[in-house]
Amino acid sequence: MPETTPTQAVQHWLAALDGALTRGDAAAAAALFNDESYWRDMVSFTWNLHTAEGRPLVQQMIERAVLPARPSGWRLEGEATEAGGVTEGWIRFETATGRGWGHLRLTNGKAWTLLTTLQELKGHEEHRGPTRDKGVLHGVDPNRQTWLEQRQQEEAELGYTRQPYVVIIGGGQGGIALGARLRRLGVPALIIEKNARPGDSWRNRYKSLCLHDPVWYDHLPYLPFPDHWPVFAPKDKIGDWLEMYTKVMELNYWGSTTCQNASWDEASQSWVVNVVRNGQPVQLRPRQLVLATGMSAVPNMPSVPGAESFQGDLHHSSRHPGAEAYRGKKAVVIGSNNSAHDICAALWEHGADVTMVQRSSTHIARSDTLMELALGGLYSEAALAAGVTTDKADMIFASLPYKILHTLQIPVYDEMKKRDADFYARLEKAGFMLDFGEDGSGLFMKYLRRGSGYYIDVGASELIADGKIKLKTRVAPERINPRSITFSDGSELPADLIVFATGYSSMNGWAAQLIGQDVADKVGKCWGLGSGTRKDPGPWEGELRNMWKPTHQPGLWFHGGNLHQSRHYSLFVALQLKARMEGIATPVYGMGPVHHLA
Amino acid sequence: MPETTPTQAVQHWLAALDGALTRGDAAAAAALFNDESYWRDMVSFTWNLHTAEGRPLVQQMIERAVLPARPSGWRLEGEATEAGGVTEGWIRFETATGRGWGHLRLTNGKAWTLLTTLQELKGHEEHRGPTRDKGVLHGVDPNRQTWLEQRQQEEAELGYTRQPYVVIIGGGQGGIALGARLRRLGVPALIIEKNARPGDSWRNRYKSLCLHDPVWYDHLPYLPFPDHWPVFAPKDKIGDWLEMYTKVMELNYWGSTTCQNASWDEASQSWVVNVVRNGQPVQLRPRQLVLATGMSAVPNMPSVPGAESFQGDLHHSSRHPGAEAYRGKKAVVIGSNNSAHDICAALWEHGADVTMVQRSSTHIARSDTLMELALGGLYSEAALAAGVTTDKADMIFASLPYKILHTLQIPVYDEMKKRDADFYARLEKAGFMLDFGEDGSGLFMKYLRRGSGYYIDVGASELIADGKIKLKTRVAPERINPRSITFSDGSELPADLIVFATGYSSMNGWAAQLIGQDVADKVGKCWGLGSGTRKDPGPWEGELRNMWKPTHQPGLWFHGGNLHQSRHYSLFVALQLKARMEGIATPVYGMGPVHHLA
Repeated sequence: MPETTPTQAVQHWLAALDGALTRGDAAAAAALFNDESYWRDMVSFTWNLHTAEGRPLVQQMIERAVLPARPSGWRLEGEATEAGGVTEGWIRFETATGRGWGHLRLTNGKAWTLLTTLQELKGHEEHRGPTRDKGVLHGVDPNRQTWLEQRQQEEAELGYTRQPYVVIIGGGQGGIALGARLRRLGVPALIIEKNARPGDSWRNRYKSLCLHDPVWYDHLPYLPFPDHWPVFAPKDKIGDWLEMYTKVMELNYWGSTTCQNASWDEASQSWVVNVVRNGQPVQLRPRQLVLATGMSAVPNMPSVPGAESFQGDLHHSSRHPGAEAYRGKKAVVIGSNNSAHDICAALWEHGADVTMVQRSSTHIARSDTLMELALGGLYSEAALAAGVTTDKADMIFASLPYKILHTLQIPVYDEMKKRDADFYARLEKAGFMLDFGEDGSGLFMKYLRRGSGYYIDVGASELIADGKIKLKTRVAPERINPRSITFSDGSELPADLIVFATGYSSMNGWAAQLIGQDVADKVGKCWGLGSGTRKDPGPWEGELRNMWKPTHQPGLWFHGGNLHQSRHYSLFVALQLKARMEGIATPVYGMGPVHHLA
Repeated sequence: MPETTPTQAVQHWLAALDGALTRGDAAAAAALFNDESYWRDMVSFTWNLHTAEGRPLVQQMIERAVLPARPSGWRLEGEATEAGGVTEGWIRFETATGRGWGHLRLTNGKAWTLLTTLQELKGHEEHRGPTRDKGVLHGVDPNRQTWLEQRQQEEAELGYTRQPYVVIIGGGQGGIALGARLRRLGVPALIIEKNARPGDSWRNRYKSLCLHDPVWYDHLPYLPFPDHWPVFAPKDKIGDWLEMYTKVMELNYWGSTTCQNASWDEASQSWVVNVVRNGQPVQLRPRQLVLATGMSAVPNMPSVPGAESFQGDLHHSSRHPGAEAYRGKKAVVIGSNNSAHDICAALWEHGADVTMVQRSSTHIARSDTLMELALGGLYSEAALAAGVTTDKADMIFASLPYKILHTLQIPVYDEMKKRDADFYARLEKAGFMLDFGEDGSGLFMKYLRRGSGYYIDVGASELIADGKIKLKTRVAPERINPRSITFSDGSELPADLIVFATGYSSMNGWAAQLIGQDVADKVGKCWGLGSGTRKDPGPWEGELRNMWKPTHQPGLWFHGGNLHQSRHYSLFVALQLKARMEGIATPVYGMGPVHHLA
């Protein structure tokens, strides 16, 4: 008897799943999963982002969400592979309302991880490739509008005489990526941005800033960067790209527009959103409101006695104008994460005398090492050469359940510690307090759990090791004086500039500001997994809180994160919005209670 | 004995060619070609665009151009195929200075067509994919410039304190595509454009204009349109794309700049180019000058007695402002090619009374039929699905020798005649004079031979068949009166508007205007193959005259054509310029004499 090939194993498993689901036998379907197993669904069955963890919860999800969605057509795409006892393959499937793409891992003949994602809604597919628009309607028509006239009419009407279905507050990468998805799906949407031009949220940051993530990780939907695009794009170049993208994707984008407030009108089941566009008040009435205002939402600005008496410049890192004006000045930067490091390095480059105040330990990952060890397998030229396209990389990344992700990350950072041992020793010798996360799982888990606590080193760490950026650790600012700052250990530092690189609060702070504290509290804290680690209190949530999925406030959505997340998750936000616009039933499964308010 | 597979046949042939060339045996190499055979080379051996036609000329080219370039590494890429007695395959090869890509067709075991193209220069490859720039230089440097500062400095200096190696006159699709190639090759270049913004040359045309070629044919280099892009893009949408492309490809583009004159300075072997930028004179000193001013170069404006007495609007089609102002007016359009048809249809749509004056017969191809029969095999979703990428389609198109191209086209148009027989009958019944080219080879041959003589029907022909656009044939304008126009048959038409859609003269008319008649005459007529058909007098040239290849004027180049040609040929112009900048020897083979002055 020939052995079963990986392809046959996956095909047999899918046939068994299909059979059980078609018979409506949830127990038989669940029996195809290991005791320890994970079915992560993105919108296709749950109309939610939800991971069922362990066979009993997998069975419950099958009963309550999968069977009602009437799945069919499970099939393997391409050939399955086997390595180290894990058989894996790409899969396709359908539901009554949509078509899905997924990824399956089998161990011992049963499912270990299953990822299912909705890719398109039947009857509401994007017009692309063979179904693209013709552009010109051949023939003649005395009343026809040109494309330009149609665009101009749309711009004149939308938000005034015709209401968008969706208003997106925040026109950075998140709002723009989502806007493009909605455009292709035919969902009328309006993006509101306080800066004048798309890309300004990058342009306005300190001048030496480049992306800390590499190009393969950063593509926007539909229109990838050309292949000469630099690995780490400078901020102004990304700004130009976002502006170009907004234009050619024909997004309705109101720059120089601020949102004053928003309220949910229960009677009409729609929002009342008051904005000021170029100084003129406009009231918008969308059915859906997306806060794409970013993780850098509401600055954390510690209240330090005496701040009002300070005679130099004092600001949060988000307001830092760049280092140019501070040559020869004494600068104190409170904080030790990405922004603090970048600002300290730029100040040093411009001849300032700089001290970084490190209050607690920080995880440092050298950029080159991080790219190679942590991202290289999915997002790199090598990955591309191995057939791992950006879309596939996003899916593979999503296929790893959050519950066990840290266990897969720990070995990466163990290797990083070894490889860069000299570097870390020099940093510690300079007094820098290092960590690799409470469980040694490193940078990406810190990002998911708390969105902070790390620096991707692109040079500042060497300045700290060399003593060029001075270090003050294990203290907190206690008092600010007219020309100096006093710390909790009684020491004092003269200062012409004080920067609070002290991070940001949860994104539901935006809801509090724009809508009201009641709504902010109703939806609760955004981001974080409930890992029970610092700044990510339990209980375990299983998915990022409130991100890209329904919240407890009807019609309110949160979208954001880095370029990768803006690209990948915008698809699922867009499909959820499109389904609601089209009146497709969207029964949400797995909506959890709110455990934390901010 | 198993039969030889197509792959083996090509591999054997390439091994024999490699052996003969390595031995320096031109006769043996030429013996691998059929009596009737074509070796078309694009820059890789000839530093020219040149087709050797027939075995004796193939042998001569091998002796004088191929052997000196020291070719090696001939290999089949992928699998060869066979159909109808023709075996074909994709090939790769090298020379001492570059790497090439090609396409081979064998009949009876010998070469029928061989296309060889230079793709990159060794040691001067574009930085893309694995060799892309890093973007940020990690580490700190007090003197480092940001990307934005570098771009701003480049913009401030180039053309003033630092001279570009290349000046491109004309910032339409041709200049922009070439500018992008040169940018990626590190050749300092400056694009001069009279309109304010990139894309204006499209935006400024009549408002209902859409591309007559489909999207798959129209991609620019490096950054293809996203897959929802319409089949026939409206002019303003293409305008926006060109503007954004210019920005993100970081082209040095001077809008609102006119070229006053240019002269070749023999002593310094460089050009003196006087331009006026935003009203300020600037003198440029490039080594290379590219006229990318387009086929719509110098308007042909027949001199008709009495024109100065006309009391309505009278202009060439290139100056036509659109139909809006002519509702209820009497319009006479002289000409029956693309522009005449488009303008007549738009005037009719806007309620004008329109007469088209057809002086001689015209080839009409219905857009849908043309797409399906003539372009669909190479440029369509079906072609893409069959693995024919845009790059491959360009190469397949280029692999068909001009000498026999008409014989391959005739059956396409025979089929078109049959399929659209009713349509053509109705047109003729309305009095329209039809042709399919002198030899029945249709639209694309007319385009290559004379760049005129046809209309791709997107609706106007039905208006003519229906009598909505009136027709006056077999006459020429004889006299223009204050409110009418009199024709050669003595008839008279009242007119508020007269449009001369009478085409353009040869592109060397630009050289005459900008540089001088002497240089225009030295380089001679541009475009056309020397087919001996109307407006394309013999003798046979073998390639388009003066396009994308060295001219008899040192440092002077012509670049232009449709979006397909702007994309494909810009690579070869760019490589020729890059080689010269780097001091690589570029011995030109096959430079012919000038047969016609314009």
